[in-house]
Amino acid sequence: VGLLYFCSMASDFTVRFLGTGSAIPMPGRHPTAQWVSIGERHYLVDCGEGTQMQIRKFHLPMQRLSAIFISHMHADHFLGLPGLLSTLDLLDFKKPLTLVAPAAVFAYLDDYAKNTGNAFRFPIHRIPTDAVRQAEPVFEDKSCTVTAFALHHSIDCHGFLFKEQPKPLKIRRESIAEFGLSHLEIQQLKAGISLSRLENVPAHLLTMAPAPPRTYAFMTDTRPLFKWADLVSGADVLYHEATFTLTWKERADQTGHSTAEAAAKFANAAKVKQLYLGHFSSRYSDLTPFLEEATPLFPNTFLAFDGLEVDIYPESITEIPEGYF
Amino acid sequence: VGLLYFCSMASDFTVRFLGTGSAIPMPGRHPTAQWVSIGERHYLVDCGEGTQMQIRKFHLPMQRLSAIFISHMHADHFLGLPGLLSTLDLLDFKKPLTLVAPAAVFAYLDDYAKNTGNAFRFPIHRIPTDAVRQAEPVFEDKSCTVTAFALHHSIDCHGFLFKEQPKPLKIRRESIAEFGLSHLEIQQLKAGISLSRLENVPAHLLTMAPAPPRTYAFMTDTRPLFKWADLVSGADVLYHEATFTLTWKERADQTGHSTAEAAAKFANAAKVKQLYLGHFSSRYSDLTPFLEEATPLFPNTFLAFDGLEVDIYPESITEIPEGYF
Repeated sequence: VGLLYFCSMASDFTVRFLGTGSAIPMPGRHPTAQWVSIGERHYLVDCGEGTQMQIRKFHLPMQRLSAIFISHMHADHFLGLPGLLSTLDLLDFKKPLTLVAPAAVFAYLDDYAKNTGNAFRFPIHRIPTDAVRQAEPVFEDKSCTVTAFALHHSIDCHGFLFKEQPKPLKIRRESIAEFGLSHLEIQQLKAGISLSRLENVPAHLLTMAPAPPRTYAFMTDTRPLFKWADLVSGADVLYHEATFTLTWKERADQTGHSTAEAAAKFANAAKVKQLYLGHFSSRYSDLTPFLEEATPLFPNTFLAFDGLEVDIYPESITEIPEGYF
Repeated sequence: VGLLYFCSMASDFTVRFLGTGSAIPMPGRHPTAQWVSIGERHYLVDCGEGTQMQIRKFHLPMQRLSAIFISHMHADHFLGLPGLLSTLDLLDFKKPLTLVAPAAVFAYLDDYAKNTGNAFRFPIHRIPTDAVRQAEPVFEDKSCTVTAFALHHSIDCHGFLFKEQPKPLKIRRESIAEFGLSHLEIQQLKAGISLSRLENVPAHLLTMAPAPPRTYAFMTDTRPLFKWADLVSGADVLYHEATFTLTWKERADQTGHSTAEAAAKFANAAKVKQLYLGHFSSRYSDLTPFLEEATPLFPNTFLAFDGLEVDIYPESITEIPEGYF
């Protein structure tokens, strides 16, 4: 019980960085895009130019996409949308796709359809973020809830907090035989419904709490914004932009970006578990200075790179899967 | 005289394929884009999504671009434009840029600027191709002339024929001493002006004809269109689409595309020197069948691939450059 183990089992909560560059893309540093998989659902966060090629390159299931979240209306965060949607259309994509984005993105797609004479044939469920001035839930499905929160960039921009849906209670395996639990009773206990015939049995002998819901926080593009430390507090993974190092701090302030130092300070204030830096300026070919600047303030800092997949495992796995030993 | 040689000297007329895929791009087969360099000028033909990343990947001088030619308004031929132009703007590009394209492309760029609130700060000289129903010159500078010609696709589409400007006459080196030619006289002879003091000397003792102007023909997307065999007759290089092999001929006919067989028949009719096939459907991972289909009909056929640079050398080099031996 409480056994924490790492094995080669793929996690069912992963974040794949498809683009970790900034306004001027470079080979190996595409503009921003991330593929987030939670449970059996797949989401895209930002969609810079070339995202559809990155999705193919890393063999991700493009046609199983449920929703796309766009942070803001800068070229390096949304220009891949018409190409991706066109390709989905050519592949006969039929599902409704949710698009959470500034309304200007919808206008851009409408104009694209008008100028090319091609409308997409699948339904796009539009959720505009313009009215979100603080933090609001903008999306929910069976795998997760997503909260959008206002960042502080040169134009309106939103971060996104992905939180998996709470897992059912876990049944103590030994209790099944001990109390002769039926299949129905097991389902009831998992859902938190107590059984009248066992009302004198303490709940902890029958069930265990599930692992706490895992969370992923996405924050780019933005100045440092400590007001959100509580919101993303304890996140399993935080992706925070670090367009510059301290050498270019003035430029970061002018353009509404963060330094590696600021990102690390925020990660520290928010007590997240892991910090990934990204959105690196094309000025930098060597990224070591970003790590050197951040790790003294937040040791668990990593550099994001195009193609890196981050597996987020449950905090603890209290039952050993059958056949594990 | 008349010596034909191949050496490692880079040509001043090159075509670099940046994308040889079609509607659905794949890793290693980006959507259509080509970088054409003639003399000291640089041009882009089509600009599919990801073109700016391909330009960087192959270290091409993005900021020396003179003109962009867009064949038609399908996503895989123009979606890279706003990203490329944005990056040029961020790099403080100042030159006027010529954009030869269907008017719908200009409308798309205007809408992009409206929706993002960002206009490009450098002048774009727009040349719409919509009125070109047959073949017309659409561009000229000191390096080349470009003729647009109407192709036969599912929407309006144009091919482009690049022809370098005629070179000056060549002076026979031995005549300089023999006739005591001054620098001014040499310039006059090169320009085809005869010298009165040498009116009895046959022209061929003083000068030689330059190599004939080199030409490059770009034909995608299109059904086979034999009416243009004369126009592109003898082209040094022809890039012709071959989206399909004969197995999918019906699909080619339906969608306004060509098979490898048709491209080879056209190359044969036009007596071009080299044929490059491209715009391959994502159905094909192995491209051998394209070559097998084309070479019996036109032996000098090659498969284009992303990154391939084709050097077009003058037909003959009649003077050996100093220091060559």
